[in-house]
Amino acid sequence: MQFKIALGQMEVRPGRPDINTQTMLEMINQARRDGAEVIIFPEMCIPGYLLGDTWEQPSFLRDCEEYGLEISKASDRITVLFGNVGVDWQKTGEDGRVRKYNAFFVARDGKFWGGDNFPYPFRIKTLQPNYRQFDDDRHFYSLRKLALELGKTPEELLTPVYLPLPNGRLGLGCLLCEDGWAADYSTKPIPAIMNKGSVNLLINISSSPFTLGKNNKRNRVFAEQARAAGVPLIYVNNVGIQNNGKTIYTFDGSSTVYNKNGEVIYCSRPSFKPNLDLVELDLANGGTNLPALDVPADDNVSFIYQALHYGIQKFTAAIGMRKVVIGISGGIDSAVSAALYAKAIGPSNLLLVNMPSRYNSPTTRQLARQLAENLGCCYTVLPIQESVDYTVKQIESTPVINPATGEKFALQITSFMSENIQARDRSARVLAAVAAAFGGGFTCNANKAETTVGYSTLYGDQAGFLAAIGDLWKHQVYDLARYLNRHVYGREVIPKGIMDIVPSAELSSDQDVEAGKGDPIAYPYHDYLFRSFVQRWDKATPEDILQWYEQGILEAKLGCRPGLVQQLFPTPRQFIDDLERWWNLFNGLGVAKRIQAPPILAVSRRAFGFDHREAQNGVYYTRRYRQLKHKLLSV
Amino acid sequence: MQFKIALGQMEVRPGRPDINTQTMLEMINQARRDGAEVIIFPEMCIPGYLLGDTWEQPSFLRDCEEYGLEISKASDRITVLFGNVGVDWQKTGEDGRVRKYNAFFVARDGKFWGGDNFPYPFRIKTLQPNYRQFDDDRHFYSLRKLALELGKTPEELLTPVYLPLPNGRLGLGCLLCEDGWAADYSTKPIPAIMNKGSVNLLINISSSPFTLGKNNKRNRVFAEQARAAGVPLIYVNNVGIQNNGKTIYTFDGSSTVYNKNGEVIYCSRPSFKPNLDLVELDLANGGTNLPALDVPADDNVSFIYQALHYGIQKFTAAIGMRKVVIGISGGIDSAVSAALYAKAIGPSNLLLVNMPSRYNSPTTRQLARQLAENLGCCYTVLPIQESVDYTVKQIESTPVINPATGEKFALQITSFMSENIQARDRSARVLAAVAAAFGGGFTCNANKAETTVGYSTLYGDQAGFLAAIGDLWKHQVYDLARYLNRHVYGREVIPKGIMDIVPSAELSSDQDVEAGKGDPIAYPYHDYLFRSFVQRWDKATPEDILQWYEQGILEAKLGCRPGLVQQLFPTPRQFIDDLERWWNLFNGLGVAKRIQAPPILAVSRRAFGFDHREAQNGVYYTRRYRQLKHKLLSV
Repeated sequence: MQFKIALGQMEVRPGRPDINTQTMLEMINQARRDGAEVIIFPEMCIPGYLLGDTWEQPSFLRDCEEYGLEISKASDRITVLFGNVGVDWQKTGEDGRVRKYNAFFVARDGKFWGGDNFPYPFRIKTLQPNYRQFDDDRHFYSLRKLALELGKTPEELLTPVYLPLPNGRLGLGCLLCEDGWAADYSTKPIPAIMNKGSVNLLINISSSPFTLGKNNKRNRVFAEQARAAGVPLIYVNNVGIQNNGKTIYTFDGSSTVYNKNGEVIYCSRPSFKPNLDLVELDLANGGTNLPALDVPADDNVSFIYQALHYGIQKFTAAIGMRKVVIGISGGIDSAVSAALYAKAIGPSNLLLVNMPSRYNSPTTRQLARQLAENLGCCYTVLPIQESVDYTVKQIESTPVINPATGEKFALQITSFMSENIQARDRSARVLAAVAAAFGGGFTCNANKAETTVGYSTLYGDQAGFLAAIGDLWKHQVYDLARYLNRHVYGREVIPKGIMDIVPSAELSSDQDVEAGKGDPIAYPYHDYLFRSFVQRWDKATPEDILQWYEQGILEAKLGCRPGLVQQLFPTPRQFIDDLERWWNLFNGLGVAKRIQAPPILAVSRRAFGFDHREAQNGVYYTRRYRQLKHKLLSV
Repeated sequence: MQFKIALGQMEVRPGRPDINTQTMLEMINQARRDGAEVIIFPEMCIPGYLLGDTWEQPSFLRDCEEYGLEISKASDRITVLFGNVGVDWQKTGEDGRVRKYNAFFVARDGKFWGGDNFPYPFRIKTLQPNYRQFDDDRHFYSLRKLALELGKTPEELLTPVYLPLPNGRLGLGCLLCEDGWAADYSTKPIPAIMNKGSVNLLINISSSPFTLGKNNKRNRVFAEQARAAGVPLIYVNNVGIQNNGKTIYTFDGSSTVYNKNGEVIYCSRPSFKPNLDLVELDLANGGTNLPALDVPADDNVSFIYQALHYGIQKFTAAIGMRKVVIGISGGIDSAVSAALYAKAIGPSNLLLVNMPSRYNSPTTRQLARQLAENLGCCYTVLPIQESVDYTVKQIESTPVINPATGEKFALQITSFMSENIQARDRSARVLAAVAAAFGGGFTCNANKAETTVGYSTLYGDQAGFLAAIGDLWKHQVYDLARYLNRHVYGREVIPKGIMDIVPSAELSSDQDVEAGKGDPIAYPYHDYLFRSFVQRWDKATPEDILQWYEQGILEAKLGCRPGLVQQLFPTPRQFIDDLERWWNLFNGLGVAKRIQAPPILAVSRRAFGFDHREAQNGVYYTRRYRQLKHKLLSV
């Protein structure tokens, strides 16, 4: 049973069934010309997957249904497997709207197959993720709910799709994305399907966003499934970008074929590229006709670069933005942003703007200019001091009238307020206007550490159309800077001085880089502390931190350098003051600022925005924390 | 069987189990002193309900559990019913984290009851909402999933809790919020519980946010449940505010008792106020011992005012903001904001700022001053023309260097760009600094029509710490203005001139109010068009609109004035151009702006933010729309 199978690793454009259908039709024709008997497309490849509440538009659902019929009509002499929304116009979902399924369609010779042993002429998703950025239960009726409604068990409904093919009958185990991640669910789709009779092939169609390190994990999990089932497994994922408003996800594709021994025998390369991969699979021997491949690790800076590069290119194209303005300070974050964008959209479409005030050192001004020259971008210098002075003077010299007392009084601008005035002057006054005049938008260069604790000014450096490095901790920003110089540009586009200088906002004389003064964030420790608040699967709070501190295992738990904590905080009092300072900001102003922050390009397994959901509820310390703190400070 | 039952309509502080437990302990003691045999608290009254991903902190869960034990210890001689998170530390949820239930606890004499006929010593939520702002499946394991795991039906697990009381055994049907809204679910909790034996009383503990008109609907639905079951039903809801970051919800309480005939025999009044209501219920006659009450309609402007007034008070208090700055233009939106805040936080804590440019008419300047005087707020005038001129001149006169060509070029600021510069100058330069100096934040005065189509400037009038009227259509803003004058202030604080003037941004000579020129939004029509995009349960798209237009039923479908469409758009071409203009903005720049917009105080059944979720996916027109358009334009 030799089958020529095409993996339709297409770019899915979310919310564009017209374009996606066109892409599919072209790939189907190509696959047929190439002699493929089967072509497999990703989950939800007609509508896209992350659409917000567009699923609540009946006219959109009808449209997707019609495009799905068009695909079935094009399935002459080829079996087309694809994901689409399956609509039951006669039934409602639990929100009272028309019922929608996240569905797997098998089309051949103009009709849909699989309705002989299932209530619908399509298969539906059994396990629906409702964690991280996923909202499946919000929109789709799962197989588990359908089973409950029909008075059956999910296992009864989990059946293969049988296809008569020229060279034999094919039993397909049709899985949708999360169906292959069953570890934490009481229903196990694969064994249930395998129990129902002869299955020759498992097929997992996914719309699985890129997350650093996820492919390695998927290879472990899916390989084990193929091995346990004793049949090959084909995983097809899309490329492109999709978003949930606050958070933007890239899709790397990486469609993979596993043989019955759980070995990877095919992997679509390169990542982040549409591909029509043809795999000749001998199902008689479970796909062992092809040699096993090594799959490299995917949790390194090269993948971060690929995801950001691809994400910037696709996002700017998607919103029709051809030109971009970046405020460059001579610091590392804006430099890395500039180097990323220069590669992604071309240096001639990039305008770098340095906006010094009296606090900006000659060193950083010079480094900014050097960076612009190295990248070959348009460049200008727009000082902000005059405007900042004008604002302070205007406010301080204009009386406010209090009608209750009849008195007039003057407002006073403190040094701290003036720092924020500078930041807003740069972004909201200069960059926004310059970007409009240049014909584009301006970027937000905030990193994840700053974003965690709101170390930024709203409508100032927190502003921009996209936070491309907003999901990178500061140490990852440095890693990426080195990677850009070494591997992307092959020369020192980001000057060494920018790597070496102390990170600083340069908004007051307390942040004088020439004197080695900089940010209050000690990144080699705080990067890891903040990461434990956000990215640990079981989120850490001060209670956990203090317990680990007391037990002497904090650095091991956080993953930062041993000895660092004692060095930074000689006493428990200093340690606790620091911990509370940042916990307060993380839960206080940090949340308020993130609510109004730009979209973040996600690479980690927990990006701010729609992935890490939060309420503006203020700061809380558990009772055990308070007890532990009392104990530590009483010693 | 006469029972004295206390409804513990408490204020729940989200994320503050310490404070909530203290509140409960005080109310328990008071109820005991008042001779109550039972006290009923709302759903999730210990942790709060809308907490974002705080549910992923194990230390927080432990803390809530311990506070729950404290409540049970306080249940000496009184039965305490309350909501809390129920944790099973031995099992996992479907996200792999420790398993959490949205749980209903029955405590009496220091122990939890109900474990004799159920797997846990608490009841758990069967129906979990995953629509609008609700994310229950993200965090909690439903009874339906538990049943599936145990190989049972949900109905088998739905059992009453039996309580031995001094004057008899009480069978309680314990429901959590959505369990009482079963219409669209295949599992029906109430009949299932009633089938299990003697039930004397249904109790629905809720954490149900205020939505205009929801109480009337709830009274219809819950009354029918009590009637069908033939036993009284007690509904206990909390007050306070909770939020999901982008969207802030008020909770009105309105705890209600229905007798076995479905008549309302008690309703906690006033709304939005913590109450310990005592109800003497004779269960022998199904609560018919008390007279039936009329419950007034709740979908009028008075409830909008109450919700906004309460929301502003609670939200400013929650984030520790005592002073507020409002930019007032002499237009209706900022005037209504000012009048709301003056009542909510006191006029002396409010600073109103008028920021004229050359485009602001003497009329609106004078109206702004008049408003400030009427309200008795602090007031100042800070013109922006000089600063705006400086910005334009600085950008236009500073050369940009293009290193590729070696050439220098100048950027040009157009009139449209200058409009946005003015808006940002007001908010990001003036108001943000003035607010800091005054010791508070500044407001966003955008209404829902502007917010729908992004008719605002990012970092300009779109900025602020809270959009208090961001969930009101323009006609609701006018209604509220009249209500404020007539019923709240009892005098014309908002000058008639502000009500009468044409709505205008006054950012260019094209928006000259003296010449009657104003906004491009024709509110009497567009308010209703936009509402159909956002608030219809089945969201309308241009396909629906055009179909209704063709059928001549558009105004009836939208709910706007008959004849208006023909009057505004004499030809199909004009109608379609207008439709596409706003649909493009709604799905394009509108989304981008909402991503960075401030939190909105929700009153409608669909507020922007976490309630109406959206992706920045651009604009789409269905195939049928394109066909219909072609047909209409070909006639």
